[in-house]
Amino acid sequence: MSPKPLILNLFEMNCVGHITHGLWRLPGNNRHRYTDVSYWTELARLAEDGGFTAIFLADVVGAYDTYGGSAEAALREGLQIPNNDPMLVVPAMAAVTERLSFGITFSTSYEPPFAFARRMSTLDHLTGGRVGWNIVTSYLPNAARNFGLAEEIEHDRRYEIADEYLEVLYKLWEGSWDEDAVVRDVEGNLYSDPTKVHRIDHAGANFSVAGPHLSEPSPQRTPTLILATASPAGAVRAGQNAELVFTHGPLLEKTAPAVRAAAEEAGRDPQEPKFIVQAAVITGRTQQEVDEKLAQYHAHRSTEGLLVHQSVPIRALEHPRERTIAEALEVEGLPADTPVGRRGTQETVGDLLAAVDEAWHDRFFVAGTPEAVADAIEHWLDVDGIDGINLRQYHSFDTVRDFAELISPILRRRGRLPERSGTMRRQLTGHDRLPTEHPATRFRGAFAGVGV
Amino acid sequence: MSPKPLILNLFEMNCVGHITHGLWRLPGNNRHRYTDVSYWTELARLAEDGGFTAIFLADVVGAYDTYGGSAEAALREGLQIPNNDPMLVVPAMAAVTERLSFGITFSTSYEPPFAFARRMSTLDHLTGGRVGWNIVTSYLPNAARNFGLAEEIEHDRRYEIADEYLEVLYKLWEGSWDEDAVVRDVEGNLYSDPTKVHRIDHAGANFSVAGPHLSEPSPQRTPTLILATASPAGAVRAGQNAELVFTHGPLLEKTAPAVRAAAEEAGRDPQEPKFIVQAAVITGRTQQEVDEKLAQYHAHRSTEGLLVHQSVPIRALEHPRERTIAEALEVEGLPADTPVGRRGTQETVGDLLAAVDEAWHDRFFVAGTPEAVADAIEHWLDVDGIDGINLRQYHSFDTVRDFAELISPILRRRGRLPERSGTMRRQLTGHDRLPTEHPATRFRGAFAGVGV
Repeated sequence: MSPKPLILNLFEMNCVGHITHGLWRLPGNNRHRYTDVSYWTELARLAEDGGFTAIFLADVVGAYDTYGGSAEAALREGLQIPNNDPMLVVPAMAAVTERLSFGITFSTSYEPPFAFARRMSTLDHLTGGRVGWNIVTSYLPNAARNFGLAEEIEHDRRYEIADEYLEVLYKLWEGSWDEDAVVRDVEGNLYSDPTKVHRIDHAGANFSVAGPHLSEPSPQRTPTLILATASPAGAVRAGQNAELVFTHGPLLEKTAPAVRAAAEEAGRDPQEPKFIVQAAVITGRTQQEVDEKLAQYHAHRSTEGLLVHQSVPIRALEHPRERTIAEALEVEGLPADTPVGRRGTQETVGDLLAAVDEAWHDRFFVAGTPEAVADAIEHWLDVDGIDGINLRQYHSFDTVRDFAELISPILRRRGRLPERSGTMRRQLTGHDRLPTEHPATRFRGAFAGVGV
Repeated sequence: MSPKPLILNLFEMNCVGHITHGLWRLPGNNRHRYTDVSYWTELARLAEDGGFTAIFLADVVGAYDTYGGSAEAALREGLQIPNNDPMLVVPAMAAVTERLSFGITFSTSYEPPFAFARRMSTLDHLTGGRVGWNIVTSYLPNAARNFGLAEEIEHDRRYEIADEYLEVLYKLWEGSWDEDAVVRDVEGNLYSDPTKVHRIDHAGANFSVAGPHLSEPSPQRTPTLILATASPAGAVRAGQNAELVFTHGPLLEKTAPAVRAAAEEAGRDPQEPKFIVQAAVITGRTQQEVDEKLAQYHAHRSTEGLLVHQSVPIRALEHPRERTIAEALEVEGLPADTPVGRRGTQETVGDLLAAVDEAWHDRFFVAGTPEAVADAIEHWLDVDGIDGINLRQYHSFDTVRDFAELISPILRRRGRLPERSGTMRRQLTGHDRLPTEHPATRFRGAFAGVGV
């Protein structure tokens, strides 16, 4: 039996400070170059050469303004503000790569589905099918106020909207154009056969969308579906829809069975969803080099950045989110009675610190020489049972370059990074289109009697 | 006095059939490659080498379904359907060019301004300021039905919404971040100075947007403002806002004075708006080559494509739009009593044909050898008084290659295509930011007392 391959994603965001608070200040870090197109083309080339599966782009459409009652600390830290649109860096990266895929975070809560459907189809065309959608419903209160709402849409209601949003998209992507609608008959002056294109005439509680879809069928039609979740409602939606589930390492044992059960309930193969976790790797040519990097990263970490970042999602997810090693580390050195400042809690830094020892043993963090790191990753795959990782970037481009130069050659030798090509879905599952068991495919042929 | 320079834009759309109906069938035409990223990078390199100012991307967010009562003919013709999103081809083109700019059509009628503001700021960053926004309000009835509306928003109401849409964008682009808000102080762990970033707290009849803007100040802040207009209401908005006005050649004498008067009324320099028209050039190394191309283009034209295309905008603009030579030519050969099929009119093809003789003498069409074409373009600049053209593409890439290889060298020698670099606004006006007389700049510093 061939060894289980690693899904290797680079975790990114179109901003200075994504999840490694304070580390934009590391010597030689290029994060402030996120506004330059050359940052993205350089990153994409490094990732592709290093055997990465995808660049996974997070996003928020508001500022973190819970901590301290304003976005001031977020701005000081560069903590996900300023930020730019994630979709727009993908075409530039696609133009300089051939195999690398791109996961794009986009929320179902604020923008019309018709426009988003065309944008994703456009990206699927431009990338040759190397694109995935990370489905989120958003959680920042400020985001709601940027889109005309007085406050966040309540959690269950957000998910109801998301369900209908997905239905509209599936209708446009899978049902509006028949597979063979584009004819390109020069002699007959027939580009598309109009009998094979259909309105969707969707009229639901939240959306009315006539169609037809504007884009012709793209390599994957529906982009590879990713869902990041840590909540029970999220696990249900992931089971119904997701091909790739991004979950917190410590929650894997809770999330995976819930997702698989929901998948089975929805008529899917329960083994179809693959699981990725956020992981962190610090490596070097020698143990001394590893130790120096670790020390340098610790010295630049920002406690306040962590607190700004943690204060919102913990409240929003409505359960104590286990934190990763690096996040926990960053609170060291603060007085234990410093309030964390989460709305509605009396939590102190001391409470966070109580998790530090445990966090040091986070399963998905490893600092070590290349062989040790490769061993750890194989353990994650074979013992912990994950299918892949979103690699946290401490330093751009050291993190990706270190992995590409030092870890990837070992993983290749061990059969963990097989050569992959084609669409994102083909690289993950062996086929370009959603399997017929996926609920989205119920709209294939569903509008056969509907004109344009 | 140095000769008046030519603003030279290539008129494009992310689709097969933009405005040259039937010509996707020309031998060697690459239009069906619009879904490939390499189509756009190849086009952009050709245009930049040929001294083009910008690639000007049209867009629609619905199908032409007036002619014949459905979108069937539009689909057969590939007439602006299928189409893909225009913004997403820009980053790929930006990555392979240094001076070429990009004009992007986007409607103020259907999508939230907050998301659009970030997308344009992102593009302004990624292109180094080489981006303009062609402000439209949309006119296709099908577009409205794709965005939850039962029918088109009525004309005056669309413009009221557009006015507020622009106000929100100007607040985000010009007012939310002070010029020196981004500090990048490594020692002080200060990326942005939060006292220099502000919410906009916009609360109007159509939009509520809290802010702050998510993007840091980009090279132009507000992208170069373009407005395509042929209506009186459009001329007023163009005078108030536009730096570049795209109008129909035959309407130039009516539109330009109206725009300049509105500019003056708004406190702007009435000479500031520049005027571009759609123009068509057919050239070759010999007159015989020119004649052969002309004959070949005529032989491939599609009358039905013209009718599908014309049936909606004429009705929507509520005045008889003068048509260009190529459009008028394409109706030759039809029985004169064939109904055009515009809703609410009894117009026949004969009525359209009546304009053909006049259209043959359209001021902004020329078929000739390179010197003759260059002479005609100089005449347009110096006698007709335009500032530039959107060049109609008959054939991709022959049209752009012919112009680059045969016409541009002559125009360069005559001082009509000076070397330009920097942001789109700098290339057009000599400065990167909007001048203080522009109404958008009233929001600079306007939120000084407002926090985040």
